[in-house]
Amino acid sequence: MKTTHIEHIGIAVRNLEDSIRFYEEVLGLKCYNIEVVADQKVRTAFFMAGQTKIELLESTSDEGPVARFLEKRGEGVHHIAFAVDNIEEALEHLTQKGIKAIDNKPRKGAEGLDIAFLHPGSTFGVLTELCEDKNKKR
Amino acid sequence: MKTTHIEHIGIAVRNLEDSIRFYEEVLGLKCYNIEVVADQKVRTAFFMAGQTKIELLESTSDEGPVARFLEKRGEGVHHIAFAVDNIEEALEHLTQKGIKAIDNKPRKGAEGLDIAFLHPGSTFGVLTELCEDKNKKR
Repeated sequence: MKTTHIEHIGIAVRNLEDSIRFYEEVLGLKCYNIEVVADQKVRTAFFMAGQTKIELLESTSDEGPVARFLEKRGEGVHHIAFAVDNIEEALEHLTQKGIKAIDNKPRKGAEGLDIAFLHPGSTFGVLTELCEDKNKKR
Repeated sequence: MKTTHIEHIGIAVRNLEDSIRFYEEVLGLKCYNIEVVADQKVRTAFFMAGQTKIELLESTSDEGPVARFLEKRGEGVHHIAFAVDNIEEALEHLTQKGIKAIDNKPRKGAEGLDIAFLHPGSTFGVLTELCEDKNKKR
């Protein structure tokens, strides 16, 4: 497997519009997309910072992973997503190394990427996502 | 001010060697530098992931910011550092926008960068660092 770059950083926020304002007006980044990811119960806002996206995550439900995160830890970094060149190969490699995955098979995430989350108990406290953009030619 | 990319992601870990092994053997990144930053009471390990560095932070003291973070929140993402083209100008801009900085003037950080931290109370829960590499020609 090859990890090419950091695809995005997911940040849990209570109010999407307030935090978009911070990233736009203060840090000078530009929100280029707002998307609802129904099965994750989130509304997300995307910004490009060089080759990495900032993905703000607002919960659309009192349940769901981001609502639980906010309740437990408050606003802050929720996960880091690494871009890999072959996600199936990466998951196989990780399993061989004894790393526990939350998703044993890739599933569809925001922006049409194939994604899989690893278990933070296996990744030194950081909820780690792998993703591959299959629309880009390998 | 212009934010060009994410310079690094700082991650608090309990044991530098154990977590280096994860980033190298599992994610396939290469640790290229280990550095003690005495005034921050940390030992840091650096990896490149595309344009962005992963900076693992192990505390060298029972006090100091990373020890306090670990005690309160456990291992995980400690801060995000954005590269800006002019850090003095960026701090001035932020102050005008009502953002509270921890460092009102830039100071020297790891790898010779000029850095300043913003207050997480002003940045929607993410401890945010700005940095400029003055060794690179503006």
